[in-house]
Amino acid sequence: MRGKAIVIMSGGPDSSTVACYVKKEGYEVHGLAFDYGQIARKEVEHAKIIANRFQIPLKVIDLSSLKQIFKGATALCDEEIPMPASFEQRIIVPFRNAIFLSIAVSYANSIGASVVFYGAQGDDASFYPDCRKEFFETFQKSAQSGTGSGIRVEAPFHGKKKSEILRIGEKLDLPYELTWSCYLGGAKHCGRCESCLNRKKAFAEAGIIDPTSYES
Amino acid sequence: MRGKAIVIMSGGPDSSTVACYVKKEGYEVHGLAFDYGQIARKEVEHAKIIANRFQIPLKVIDLSSLKQIFKGATALCDEEIPMPASFEQRIIVPFRNAIFLSIAVSYANSIGASVVFYGAQGDDASFYPDCRKEFFETFQKSAQSGTGSGIRVEAPFHGKKKSEILRIGEKLDLPYELTWSCYLGGAKHCGRCESCLNRKKAFAEAGIIDPTSYES
Repeated sequence: MRGKAIVIMSGGPDSSTVACYVKKEGYEVHGLAFDYGQIARKEVEHAKIIANRFQIPLKVIDLSSLKQIFKGATALCDEEIPMPASFEQRIIVPFRNAIFLSIAVSYANSIGASVVFYGAQGDDASFYPDCRKEFFETFQKSAQSGTGSGIRVEAPFHGKKKSEILRIGEKLDLPYELTWSCYLGGAKHCGRCESCLNRKKAFAEAGIIDPTSYES
Repeated sequence: MRGKAIVIMSGGPDSSTVACYVKKEGYEVHGLAFDYGQIARKEVEHAKIIANRFQIPLKVIDLSSLKQIFKGATALCDEEIPMPASFEQRIIVPFRNAIFLSIAVSYANSIGASVVFYGAQGDDASFYPDCRKEFFETFQKSAQSGTGSGIRVEAPFHGKKKSEILRIGEKLDLPYELTWSCYLGGAKHCGRCESCLNRKKAFAEAGIIDPTSYES
Protein backbone atom coordinates (compact mmCIF):
# COMPACT_ATOMS: atom_id res chain seq x y z
CA MET A 1 0.00 0.00 0.00
CA ARG A 2 1.29 3.45 -0.94
CA GLY A 3 -0.98 5.32 1.45
CA LYS A 4 -4.00 7.50 0.87
CA ALA A 5 -4.50 9.66 -2.20
CA ILE A 6 -7.25 12.06 -3.23
CA VAL A 7 -8.39 11.96 -6.86
CA ILE A 8 -10.62 14.64 -8.34
CA MET A 9 -13.20 12.83 -10.46
CA SER A 10 -15.36 14.54 -13.06
CA GLY A 11 -16.87 11.42 -14.62
CA GLY A 12 -14.90 12.07 -17.82
CA PRO A 13 -12.34 9.77 -19.46
CA ASP A 14 -9.22 11.59 -18.21
CA SER A 15 -9.99 11.77 -14.50
CA SER A 16 -11.57 8.31 -14.53
CA THR A 17 -8.35 6.91 -15.99
CA VAL A 18 -6.32 8.75 -13.35
CA ALA A 19 -8.46 7.20 -10.61
CA CYS A 20 -8.05 3.66 -11.99
CA TYR A 21 -4.36 4.12 -12.69
CA VAL A 22 -3.59 5.48 -9.24
CA LYS A 23 -5.57 2.72 -7.58
CA LYS A 24 -3.67 0.14 -9.63
CA GLU A 25 -0.43 1.79 -8.47
CA GLY A 26 -1.38 0.80 -4.93
CA TYR A 27 -2.89 3.96 -3.46
CA GLU A 28 -5.95 3.92 -1.24
CA VAL A 29 -7.98 6.26 -3.43
CA HIS A 30 -10.52 8.73 -2.08
CA GLY A 31 -12.53 10.49 -4.76
CA LEU A 32 -13.96 13.98 -4.81
CA ALA A 33 -16.56 15.21 -7.30
CA PHE A 34 -17.97 18.72 -7.58
CA ASP A 35 -21.31 20.17 -8.47
CA TYR A 36 -20.30 23.74 -9.30
CA GLY A 37 -23.43 24.76 -11.13
CA GLN A 38 -22.32 23.24 -14.43
CA ILE A 39 -25.05 22.62 -17.01
CA ALA A 40 -23.70 19.07 -17.33
CA ARG A 41 -24.42 18.23 -13.71
CA LYS A 42 -24.84 14.74 -15.09
CA GLU A 43 -21.06 14.32 -14.97
CA VAL A 44 -21.33 14.00 -11.19
CA GLU A 45 -23.59 10.97 -11.68
CA HIS A 46 -20.97 9.45 -13.96
CA ALA A 47 -18.25 10.11 -11.40
CA LYS A 48 -20.40 8.15 -8.94
CA ILE A 49 -20.83 5.27 -11.40
CA ILE A 50 -17.08 5.05 -12.06
CA ALA A 51 -16.25 5.33 -8.35
CA ASN A 52 -18.74 2.62 -7.58
CA ARG A 53 -17.38 0.34 -10.29
CA PHE A 54 -13.85 0.62 -8.88
CA GLN A 55 -14.90 0.64 -5.23
CA ILE A 56 -13.59 4.13 -4.63
CA PRO A 57 -15.30 6.05 -1.82
CA LEU A 58 -16.50 9.31 -3.33
CA LYS A 59 -17.59 12.53 -1.69
CA VAL A 60 -19.69 14.89 -3.79
CA ILE A 61 -19.19 18.51 -2.79
CA ASP A 62 -22.00 20.93 -3.54
CA LEU A 63 -20.50 24.15 -4.84
CA SER A 64 -23.59 25.13 -6.80
CA SER A 65 -23.57 28.46 -4.99
CA LEU A 66 -20.67 29.36 -7.30
CA LYS A 67 -23.27 29.89 -10.01
CA GLN A 68 -23.40 33.42 -8.59
CA ILE A 69 -19.86 33.89 -9.85
CA PHE A 70 -19.83 31.70 -12.93
CA LYS A 71 -23.11 32.88 -14.44
CA GLY A 72 -22.19 35.30 -17.21
CA ALA A 73 -18.57 34.15 -17.06
CA THR A 74 -18.64 30.76 -18.76
CA ALA A 75 -20.86 28.85 -21.17
CA LEU A 76 -20.42 25.75 -18.99
CA CYS A 77 -22.57 27.30 -16.25
CA ASP A 78 -24.85 29.64 -18.15
CA GLU A 79 -27.44 28.39 -20.62
CA GLU A 80 -27.74 31.85 -22.11
CA ILE A 81 -24.15 31.78 -23.41
CA PRO A 82 -24.06 29.73 -26.63
CA MET A 83 -21.85 26.64 -26.37
CA PRO A 84 -19.05 26.87 -28.96
CA ALA A 85 -17.92 23.92 -31.09
CA SER A 86 -14.22 24.65 -30.64
CA PHE A 87 -12.12 26.20 -27.94
CA GLU A 88 -13.07 29.75 -27.00
CA GLN A 89 -12.41 31.82 -23.89
CA ARG A 90 -16.05 31.53 -22.90
CA ILE A 91 -15.78 27.83 -22.07
CA ILE A 92 -13.08 28.46 -19.49
CA VAL A 93 -14.33 28.29 -15.91
CA PRO A 94 -11.72 30.62 -14.45
CA PHE A 95 -9.38 29.02 -11.90
CA ARG A 96 -11.79 26.13 -11.48
CA ASN A 97 -9.09 23.53 -10.96
CA ALA A 98 -7.57 25.60 -8.16
CA ILE A 99 -10.91 25.65 -6.36
CA PHE A 100 -11.15 21.86 -6.67
CA LEU A 101 -7.50 21.31 -5.72
CA SER A 102 -7.75 23.58 -2.66
CA ILE A 103 -10.63 21.52 -1.34
CA ALA A 104 -8.79 18.32 -2.22
CA VAL A 105 -5.69 19.48 -0.31
CA SER A 106 -7.86 20.34 2.67
CA TYR A 107 -9.46 16.89 2.51
CA ALA A 108 -6.03 15.26 2.18
CA ASN A 109 -4.90 17.10 5.28
CA SER A 110 -7.98 15.93 7.17
CA ILE A 111 -7.64 12.24 6.37
CA GLY A 112 -3.85 12.00 6.19
CA ALA A 113 -3.44 11.60 2.42
CA SER A 114 -0.04 12.55 1.05
CA VAL A 115 -0.98 13.36 -2.53
CA VAL A 116 -3.75 14.87 -4.64
CA PHE A 117 -4.18 13.79 -8.25
CA TYR A 118 -6.18 15.43 -11.01
CA GLY A 119 -6.77 14.75 -14.67
CA ALA A 120 -5.01 17.63 -16.42
CA GLN A 121 -3.51 16.42 -19.69
CA GLY A 122 -1.41 17.60 -22.59
CA ASP A 123 -4.13 18.39 -25.12
CA ASP A 124 -5.86 20.71 -22.65
CA ALA A 125 -2.69 22.39 -21.42
CA SER A 126 -2.42 24.67 -24.44
CA PHE A 127 -5.91 26.06 -23.87
CA TYR A 128 -6.56 25.88 -20.13
CA PRO A 129 -3.97 27.62 -17.92
CA ASP A 130 -4.99 25.59 -14.85
CA CYS A 131 -4.08 22.36 -16.66
CA ARG A 132 -0.44 23.38 -17.12
CA LYS A 133 2.55 22.00 -15.29
CA GLU A 134 3.61 25.47 -14.22
CA PHE A 135 0.26 25.92 -12.53
CA PHE A 136 0.13 22.70 -10.57
CA GLU A 137 3.77 22.97 -9.57
CA THR A 138 3.29 26.45 -8.13
CA PHE A 139 0.02 25.35 -6.61
CA GLN A 140 1.85 22.48 -4.89
CA LYS A 141 4.25 24.99 -3.37
CA SER A 142 1.38 27.06 -2.02
CA ALA A 143 -0.25 23.87 -0.69
CA GLN A 144 2.93 22.90 1.11
CA SER A 145 3.40 26.31 2.67
CA GLY A 146 -0.32 26.75 3.38
CA THR A 147 -0.60 23.47 5.27
CA GLY A 148 2.93 23.18 6.62
CA SER A 149 3.13 19.69 5.10
CA GLY A 150 4.83 17.85 2.28
CA ILE A 151 1.58 17.35 0.34
CA ARG A 152 2.04 16.67 -3.37
CA VAL A 153 -0.23 17.86 -6.18
CA GLU A 154 0.16 15.81 -9.34
CA ALA A 155 -1.31 15.36 -12.78
CA PRO A 156 0.11 12.00 -13.84
CA PHE A 157 -0.98 12.44 -17.47
CA HIS A 158 0.04 16.07 -17.90
CA GLY A 159 2.43 15.22 -20.73
CA LYS A 160 0.09 12.84 -22.54
CA LYS A 161 -2.49 13.29 -25.26
CA LYS A 162 -6.07 12.26 -24.60
CA SER A 163 -5.68 9.37 -27.04
CA GLU A 164 -2.72 8.02 -25.07
CA ILE A 165 -4.77 8.20 -21.87
CA LEU A 166 -7.53 6.17 -23.52
CA ARG A 167 -5.00 3.47 -24.35
CA ILE A 168 -3.84 3.37 -20.74
CA GLY A 169 -7.42 3.09 -19.54
CA GLU A 170 -8.18 0.36 -22.04
CA LYS A 171 -5.43 -1.78 -20.52
CA LEU A 172 -6.94 -1.11 -17.09
CA ASP A 173 -10.32 -2.36 -18.36
CA LEU A 174 -11.91 1.01 -17.81
CA PRO A 175 -15.46 0.93 -19.26
CA TYR A 176 -15.39 4.21 -21.19
CA GLU A 177 -19.06 3.82 -22.07
CA LEU A 178 -19.71 4.77 -18.43
CA THR A 179 -17.83 8.08 -18.69
CA TRP A 180 -19.31 11.44 -19.64
CA SER A 181 -17.67 14.30 -21.59
CA CYS A 182 -20.46 16.44 -23.04
CA TYR A 183 -20.75 19.98 -21.71
CA LEU A 184 -24.49 20.02 -22.40
CA GLY A 185 -25.58 17.11 -20.22
CA GLY A 186 -28.49 15.93 -22.38
CA ALA A 187 -29.80 12.36 -22.66
CA LYS A 188 -26.93 11.51 -25.04
CA HIS A 189 -23.57 13.13 -25.77
CA CYS A 190 -24.36 15.99 -28.18
CA GLY A 191 -21.41 15.18 -30.44
CA ARG A 192 -20.93 18.86 -31.32
CA CYS A 193 -19.45 20.70 -28.31
CA GLU A 194 -15.68 21.07 -27.90
CA SER A 195 -15.58 18.31 -25.32
CA CYS A 196 -17.53 15.83 -27.47
CA LEU A 197 -15.34 16.62 -30.47
CA ASN A 198 -12.18 16.04 -28.40
CA ARG A 199 -13.63 12.75 -27.18
CA LYS A 200 -14.45 11.55 -30.70
CA LYS A 201 -11.04 12.59 -32.00
CA ALA A 202 -9.17 10.87 -29.18
CA PHE A 203 -10.93 7.53 -29.71
CA ALA A 204 -10.17 7.77 -33.43
CA GLU A 205 -6.51 8.62 -32.79
CA ALA A 206 -6.18 5.84 -30.22
CA GLY A 207 -7.63 3.28 -32.64
CA ILE A 208 -10.20 2.27 -30.04
CA ILE A 209 -13.85 1.77 -30.97
CA ASP A 210 -15.77 4.71 -29.52
CA PRO A 211 -18.54 3.23 -27.36
CA THR A 212 -20.34 6.59 -27.08
CA SER A 213 -23.81 7.17 -28.44
CA TYR A 214 -23.80 10.71 -29.89
CA GLU A 215 -26.80 12.77 -30.97
CA SER A 216 -24.85 13.79 -34.07
CA MET B 1 -10.31 55.01 -8.96
CA ARG B 2 -7.82 52.17 -8.67
CA GLY B 3 -10.07 49.61 -10.28
CA LYS B 4 -11.93 46.63 -8.90
CA ALA B 5 -10.72 44.57 -5.94
CA ILE B 6 -12.14 41.51 -4.19
CA VAL B 7 -12.01 41.46 -0.39
CA ILE B 8 -12.72 38.29 1.60
CA MET B 9 -14.90 39.35 4.52
CA SER B 10 -15.48 37.20 7.59
CA GLY B 11 -17.27 39.80 9.71
CA GLY B 12 -14.26 39.94 12.06
CA PRO B 13 -12.15 43.00 12.91
CA ASP B 14 -9.19 42.15 10.63
CA SER B 15 -11.03 41.53 7.36
CA SER B 16 -13.48 44.36 8.08
CA THR B 17 -10.56 46.74 8.48
CA VAL B 18 -9.03 45.48 5.24
CA ALA B 19 -12.31 46.15 3.42
CA CYS B 20 -12.55 49.72 4.79
CA TYR B 21 -8.89 50.42 4.21
CA VAL B 22 -8.90 49.19 0.64
CA LYS B 23 -12.05 51.13 -0.13
CA LYS B 24 -10.46 54.27 1.31
CA GLU B 25 -7.44 53.60 -0.92
CA GLY B 26 -9.73 54.09 -3.89
CA TYR B 27 -10.60 50.58 -4.97
CA GLU B 28 -14.08 49.55 -6.08
CA VAL B 29 -14.49 46.82 -3.46
CA HIS B 30 -16.45 43.62 -4.05
CA GLY B 31 -16.85 41.49 -0.95
CA LEU B 32 -17.06 37.73 -0.63
CA ALA B 33 -18.21 35.90 2.51
CA PHE B 34 -18.32 32.15 3.03
CA ASP B 35 -20.58 29.80 4.88
CA TYR B 36 -18.32 26.75 5.15
CA GLY B 37 -20.22 24.91 7.85
CA GLN B 38 -18.62 26.88 10.68
CA ILE B 39 -20.42 26.78 14.04
CA ALA B 40 -20.18 30.56 14.07
CA ARG B 41 -22.25 30.98 10.94
CA LYS B 42 -23.25 34.24 12.56
CA GLU B 43 -20.02 35.78 11.26
CA VAL B 44 -21.58 35.80 7.78
CA GLU B 45 -24.37 38.02 9.12
CA HIS B 46 -21.75 40.38 10.51
CA ALA B 47 -19.94 40.44 7.18
CA LYS B 48 -23.26 41.53 5.65
CA ILE B 49 -23.71 44.27 8.26
CA ILE B 50 -20.20 45.64 7.69
CA ALA B 51 -20.56 45.44 3.91
CA ASN B 52 -23.88 47.22 4.12
CA ARG B 53 -22.48 49.95 6.35
CA PHE B 54 -19.68 50.69 3.87
CA GLN B 55 -21.81 50.16 0.76
CA ILE B 56 -19.76 47.21 -0.41
CA PRO B 57 -21.63 44.73 -2.60
CA LEU B 58 -21.23 41.32 -0.96
CA LYS B 59 -21.75 37.84 -2.33
CA VAL B 60 -22.25 35.06 0.21
CA ILE B 61 -21.02 31.72 -1.08
CA ASP B 62 -22.56 28.61 0.40
CA LEU B 63 -19.82 26.06 0.97
CA SER B 64 -21.66 24.29 3.79
CA SER B 65 -21.22 21.03 1.90
CA LEU B 66 -17.58 21.18 3.09
CA LYS B 67 -18.89 20.02 6.46
CA GLN B 68 -18.39 16.55 4.97
CA ILE B 69 -14.66 17.25 5.00
CA PHE B 70 -14.31 19.51 8.03
CA LYS B 71 -16.40 17.47 10.47
CA GLY B 72 -13.95 15.58 12.65
CA ALA B 73 -11.11 17.77 11.38
CA THR B 74 -11.65 21.07 13.19
CA ALA B 75 -13.43 22.34 16.28
CA LEU B 76 -14.68 25.30 14.24
CA CYS B 77 -17.02 23.05 12.26
CA ASP B 78 -17.74 20.20 14.68
CA GLU B 79 -19.64 20.76 17.91
CA GLU B 80 -18.39 17.46 19.24
CA ILE B 81 -14.78 18.68 19.31
CA PRO B 82 -14.25 20.82 22.44
CA MET B 83 -13.29 24.42 21.64
CA PRO B 84 -9.88 25.18 23.16
CA ALA B 85 -9.09 28.43 24.96
CA SER B 86 -5.69 28.83 23.32
CA PHE B 87 -4.22 27.86 20.00
CA GLU B 88 -4.28 24.14 19.23
CA GLN B 89 -4.08 22.22 15.98
CA ARG B 90 -7.74 21.33 16.23
CA ILE B 91 -8.89 24.89 15.54
CA ILE B 92 -7.12 24.99 12.19
CA VAL B 93 -9.45 24.58 9.23
CA PRO B 94 -6.88 23.09 6.88
CA PHE B 95 -6.09 25.20 3.81
CA ARG B 96 -9.27 27.19 4.34
CA ASN B 97 -7.80 30.44 3.11
CA ALA B 98 -6.71 28.79 -0.13
CA ILE B 99 -10.27 27.64 -0.77
CA PHE B 100 -11.54 31.18 -0.19
CA LEU B 101 -8.74 32.76 -2.23
CA SER B 102 -9.27 30.38 -5.17
CA ILE B 103 -12.90 31.39 -5.36
CA ALA B 104 -11.93 35.04 -4.97
CA VAL B 105 -9.43 34.77 -7.83
CA SER B 106 -12.07 33.14 -10.00
CA TYR B 107 -14.50 35.95 -9.15
CA ALA B 108 -11.81 38.55 -9.85
CA ASN B 109 -11.24 36.99 -13.24
CA SER B 110 -14.97 37.06 -13.98
CA ILE B 111 -15.54 40.72 -13.14
CA GLY B 112 -12.16 42.11 -14.20
CA ALA B 113 -10.69 42.81 -10.75
CA SER B 114 -6.91 43.01 -10.60
CA VAL B 115 -6.35 42.14 -6.94
CA VAL B 116 -7.69 39.97 -4.14
CA PHE B 117 -7.25 41.07 -0.53
CA TYR B 118 -7.64 39.03 2.63
CA GLY B 119 -7.19 39.69 6.33
CA ALA B 120 -4.16 37.58 7.26
CA GLN B 121 -2.12 39.37 9.93
CA GLY B 122 1.06 39.03 11.92
CA ASP B 123 -0.34 37.58 15.16
CA ASP B 124 -1.97 34.71 13.28
CA ALA B 125 0.99 34.01 11.00
CA SER B 126 2.91 32.09 13.64
CA PHE B 127 0.00 29.67 14.15
CA TYR B 128 -1.85 29.45 10.84
CA PRO B 129 0.28 28.48 7.84
CA ASP B 130 -2.23 29.92 5.36
CA CYS B 131 -1.81 33.38 6.94
CA ARG B 132 1.91 33.54 6.15
CA LYS B 133 3.57 35.66 3.51
CA GLU B 134 5.24 32.62 1.98
CA PHE B 135 1.81 31.09 1.46
CA PHE B 136 0.07 34.01 -0.20
CA GLU B 137 3.10 34.82 -2.34
CA THR B 138 3.26 31.28 -3.72
CA PHE B 139 -0.51 31.27 -4.04
CA GLN B 140 -0.29 34.45 -6.10
CA LYS B 141 2.14 32.72 -8.45
CA SER B 142 -0.24 29.80 -8.90
CA ALA B 143 -3.10 32.28 -9.46
CA GLN B 144 -1.13 34.07 -12.15
CA SER B 145 -0.16 30.89 -13.95
CA GLY B 146 -3.60 29.30 -13.44
CA THR B 147 -5.46 32.25 -14.96
CA GLY B 148 -2.83 33.52 -17.37
CA SER B 149 -3.21 36.97 -15.82
CA GLY B 150 -1.33 39.38 -13.61
CA ILE B 151 -3.77 38.99 -10.70
CA ARG B 152 -2.36 39.96 -7.31
CA VAL B 153 -3.13 38.28 -3.97
CA GLU B 154 -2.38 40.53 -1.01
CA ALA B 155 -2.72 40.68 2.75
CA PRO B 156 -2.11 44.37 3.45
CA PHE B 157 -1.79 43.81 7.22
CA HIS B 158 0.37 40.68 7.10
CA GLY B 159 3.17 42.36 9.04
CA LYS B 160 0.93 44.01 11.63
CA LYS B 161 -0.37 42.92 15.02
CA LYS B 162 -4.12 42.79 15.60
CA SER B 163 -3.84 45.80 17.94
CA GLU B 164 -2.23 47.87 15.18
CA ILE B 165 -5.04 46.92 12.82
CA LEU B 166 -7.60 48.09 15.38
CA ARG B 167 -5.88 51.46 15.48
CA ILE B 168 -6.04 51.73 11.70
CA GLY B 169 -9.73 50.83 11.76
CA GLU B 170 -10.43 53.36 14.49
CA LYS B 171 -9.08 56.10 12.27
CA LEU B 172 -11.34 54.85 9.49
CA ASP B 173 -14.36 55.06 11.84
CA LEU B 174 -14.95 51.35 11.65
CA PRO B 175 -17.67 50.46 14.18
CA TYR B 176 -15.99 47.44 15.81
CA GLU B 177 -19.12 46.72 17.83
CA LEU B 178 -20.59 45.46 14.56
CA THR B 179 -17.82 42.89 14.03
CA TRP B 180 -17.82 39.30 15.26
CA SER B 181 -14.86 37.17 16.40
CA CYS B 182 -16.23 34.35 18.58
CA TYR B 183 -15.84 30.81 17.23
CA LEU B 184 -18.97 29.69 19.09
CA GLY B 185 -21.53 32.02 17.53
CA GLY B 186 -23.78 32.38 20.57
CA ALA B 187 -25.96 35.39 21.45
CA LYS B 188 -22.88 37.18 22.79
CA HIS B 189 -19.13 36.70 22.32
CA CYS B 190 -18.21 33.86 24.71
CA GLY B 191 -15.07 35.64 25.93
CA ARG B 192 -13.23 32.35 26.43
CA CYS B 193 -12.34 30.89 23.01
CA GLU B 194 -8.97 31.66 21.38
CA SER B 195 -10.56 34.16 19.05
CA CYS B 196 -12.37 36.07 21.85
CA LEU B 197 -9.19 36.13 23.92
CA ASN B 198 -7.22 37.52 20.97
CA ARG B 199 -9.90 40.16 20.47
CA LYS B 200 -9.84 41.25 24.14
CA LYS B 201 -6.06 41.34 24.21
CA ALA B 202 -5.82 43.40 21.01
CA PHE B 203 -8.23 46.07 22.25
CA ALA B 204 -6.27 46.28 25.52
CA GLU B 205 -2.94 46.54 23.67
CA ALA B 206 -4.33 49.14 21.28
CA GLY B 207 -5.63 51.24 24.18
CA ILE B 208 -9.07 51.30 22.59
CA ILE B 209 -12.19 50.72 24.67
CA ASP B 210 -13.48 47.27 23.77
CA PRO B 211 -17.12 47.73 22.71
CA THR B 212 -17.79 43.98 22.84
CA SER B 213 -20.29 42.44 25.23
CA TYR B 214 -18.74 39.16 26.44
CA GLU B 215 -20.45 36.35 28.33
CA SER B 216 -17.40 36.11 30.58
